[in-house]
Order: sequence, then C-alpha cells, then structure tokens
Amino acid sequence: MITSNTNEQIKNLIHLKDKSKARKTSGTFIVEGIKMFQEIPKEDFIKAYASESFYEKRKEEISDYFKKNNLKEDVQLVSDSVFKKISDTVTPQGILAVVRQKTYSIEDIIKSRNKEKSCIVVLDRIQDPGNLGTIVRTGEAAGITGIIMSSSTADIYNPKVIRSTMGSIYRVPFAIVADLPKAVDILREDGITCFAAHLKGELYNSGTLTKDCALLIGNEANGLSDEVANKADKLIKIPMAGKVESLNAAIATSILMYEATR
Amino acid sequence: MITSNTNEQIKNLIHLKDKSKARKTSGTFIVEGIKMFQEIPKEDFIKAYASESFYEKRKEEISDYFKKNNLKEDVQLVSDSVFKKISDTVTPQGILAVVRQKTYSIEDIIKSRNKEKSCIVVLDRIQDPGNLGTIVRTGEAAGITGIIMSSSTADIYNPKVIRSTMGSIYRVPFAIVADLPKAVDILREDGITCFAAHLKGELYNSGTLTKDCALLIGNEANGLSDEVANKADKLIKIPMAGKVESLNAAIATSILMYEATR
Repeated sequence: MITSNTNEQIKNLIHLKDKSKARKTSGTFIVEGIKMFQEIPKEDFIKAYASESFYEKRKEEISDYFKKNNLKEDVQLVSDSVFKKISDTVTPQGILAVVRQKTYSIEDIIKSRNKEKSCIVVLDRIQDPGNLGTIVRTGEAAGITGIIMSSSTADIYNPKVIRSTMGSIYRVPFAIVADLPKAVDILREDGITCFAAHLKGELYNSGTLTKDCALLIGNEANGLSDEVANKADKLIKIPMAGKVESLNAAIATSILMYEATR
Repeated sequence: MITSNTNEQIKNLIHLKDKSKARKTSGTFIVEGIKMFQEIPKEDFIKAYASESFYEKRKEEISDYFKKNNLKEDVQLVSDSVFKKISDTVTPQGILAVVRQKTYSIEDIIKSRNKEKSCIVVLDRIQDPGNLGTIVRTGEAAGITGIIMSSSTADIYNPKVIRSTMGSIYRVPFAIVADLPKAVDILREDGITCFAAHLKGELYNSGTLTKDCALLIGNEANGLSDEVANKADKLIKIPMAGKVESLNAAIATSILMYEATR
C-alpha cells in the first residue's frame, strides 16, 4: 500500500489530474468513481487505484470489473489520506483509474454516420468544463454521431469534464481540430448541412433541422466566431420568450441535439 | 465610504449572502453584477453597494438605473477589499444590491395562466443551485407560467441560484410549498394535466405533452418521490440512446419545457 504523497506513482497521478500537458504527453487521463471505473472499455484500461477503506468495502465490485473483462486484476491500494491528494473531488469515493485516450479524426466521424439520422456537433471554444461534459452526456442520449471541437475548447480530459460526462466520454467519438472553419468545409463537402446556433439566426420550427446535419455551437460569452458562422448553411436561433438574451451553452446545445435527432 | 468589515451594514450583507435564514427573516436577498442590478424591478429595490473602483468607472450606468426608474440614487460606496468580503464571486464586478423577495401562491400561478399554452414546472427537492437557477432562466425563455417547488428544494435566493438565473429570477413567478403532493392535487383539480418525468415513464412523442400541463421533476440523484409521482396523470421519459441512464436535471427539464411550450 502506498502511504506517501511523494511516491512516484502518486506524483504522476497528481500531474495527470492537474495538468493538461501531462495528459497530452502520456496519452492518458484519470477517471474517478465506481461507475466511471466499471464502464472503462477493456482495451483502454491501464491501472486502478483504490483507497484502503473503499477497497475493504467494495472489493468484490472491483474484482467483477476485471473478471467481466478478462483482465488481470491490477489495483494499487493507497492510504485514505493519499487518496485525497490524487482525487479531484472534495469527498472522494475511493477509486480512480488511469485510462488510455482515444483519438478520432473528422473522417472517422463522418464515415461512421448513418445519413438517415446523423447529427454531428461542432464546438467552437466552449470554456466551461461542466458544459462540455454535459454536452457529451446529453449527446450520447440524443444519439449524435460525434463531436468536433476546436483545440481552444476546454480540455475534454479535464477531470471536471470527465465527471460531467457520466461515462459518455467512453462512447461518444470526438475529434479535436486546430482549424475549425476548415472542418466545417469538410463536413459540407460531404453533403452535411451545417446549422449555426446564432443570435442573428432564424427561429427554427419542426421542419428546419434536416437529417444528416451538423450543429455549430459557440463560446459561452461570445458565441460563434465569424469565421465559423460564415461557413454555415444556415443560422438558426432557439425561440426565447421574456427578456432572456441567451441560454446556457449546454442547455441550448441539448435542445438542438434533441430537435435534430427526434 | 465603508472601509471596515465590521461595519454593521457589511455584517448584515455577509449574513444575507451566506445564510438562508437571514434572507428568510428579512424577506430580502442579494443580487450581484451590473446586469442583475440594472434589471431589478423598481418596486423591489432596497439599496445598492459599489466598490470604489467600480463606481469610479461605471457611475453613469449606475445612475441611469435610478433615473430610468425614477428612484432616488442610493449607492453606498465600499472599499475594494470590503467589497471582496460581501461578494459571492472570486473576481467580483464591484456592484451588488439588496432586493425585496416576491411571494406568490400556487393560486397566483394557476390564475395567471393562459390555458392555450400554459406549462407549470413542479420541482421536487432539486438540490444543485446551478440546476435550479438554470431551470428558472430556461423556463422564462421557454415561456413557462411559473414554478412550484417543495420547501426541500435548494434555496432559490442562494447567490449561486440567483447568478445562474441571469435575471429571470425577477420575472418567473414561483411558489414554495411544504406539501408538494397536495400542490399537485390542486393543479389537477384545476384541470391541469400533470406529467411526471420518470425512469419508468413512457417515451413521449410530439403529441404527448398537451396544452395546459405541469411537468413534475425530481431530485438529481433520486428522482421524484413516490408520493409526488403517484399523483401524476402520466409518467413520461425522455428517449435516451446509448448507455445513458439519466440526464442532468436542468437539461431534462429544459428539453421538456421546450417540448411542452413549442
């Protein structure tokens, strides 16, 4: 059992938790909590860490993951106080794991789509980790094909994003691109109709969002950049009553995803 | 200018910010930021506080509020360091105000509705302040008639709720009730169809959510209590693809509100 915060593995975990660069360099990230642990795709699992007291109480559930996936059990025990250091939450459950990052290209996402009902979400500089994670989670539920995001979007492997995805991070394909306007060009060349959520857009109605579409969603405070909005086939706007000037980005995206895939 | 944290007004503001009981006893709450300040209904304004540096830069905007509303200017200046103590944010804008609470009864909300398109939202123990505030904000945008919530719901006057409403707190009528099942009875007696969002519900389609309805929404972790769900006319469920077990409460409520009022 590891009892020291200066242990090399612990130092590495703290880096993975806190530093986007450490995640990028290693091609790994951390997931936390029993549900996130149990849903790790077998091929992406690297190593699990459990607090002494959590392992004591829940070791069968932990073992079940390894049995179910035909993996050799690999759980490093750490003291409860060390676990607090590697956890991103105030009251940690007591289990986390290092997981391999997946990479997709725009082409992977385009090719995987079913044109009869595909909806691809394009995110331009979404900054709030909770918003990003919630979009991934609701996106899986709405049945979207995948997400394409600018590299200036919040780091999808940030622990707060991961937590908000509630496991959807494992199942929704996403591509991170340096040139988002060019990505929109690629989608359109493939026959995908691109709708931009925009305050100057047209109010949509039930026929607006056609099949095989993409939804372009902008930054929380500033909306879509002009470079991206100008590439869209159509600007659309969610109807807003009262004196509301805008909706929360995750809410707006969710309403549009459900509208597009219904 | 107030420069001491032990000033009586400052101590009172800190109580109003931190303590639900202080807000309840006084019938007031605090709003923060220039946008929230500018939108205060004239009749509910009590007093404004500005930091020295904010007032220096933005005094005309502040004065405009008073002129527009025909109110005598009432802004107490405080030092920047004192302002940090009364603010609920890490990087305060520099203006906040004490505002009178509004009270509505269920009957107020029922009577104010337009039966052709009314949707009332009923919240059972929503706990996350961000979720509650976002529901109020999106509710105004969707055009709901009002919100009825159990007294075990998060305090709607909590600064985090207020901030997430983005001003909708002033405009969406809400009633806080001790007996939520009884409130549902009252709605139904008035001819309002009550739909409960429930994991055992029926998947809705475009005809499900009839006009003049109420949406019953449960706690983030545990959903609706049986006592409330049992009162509903119908249990409904948002379609969820993939392996998603549930949606975030504010997301689910928003999708349903837009579905009901479209």
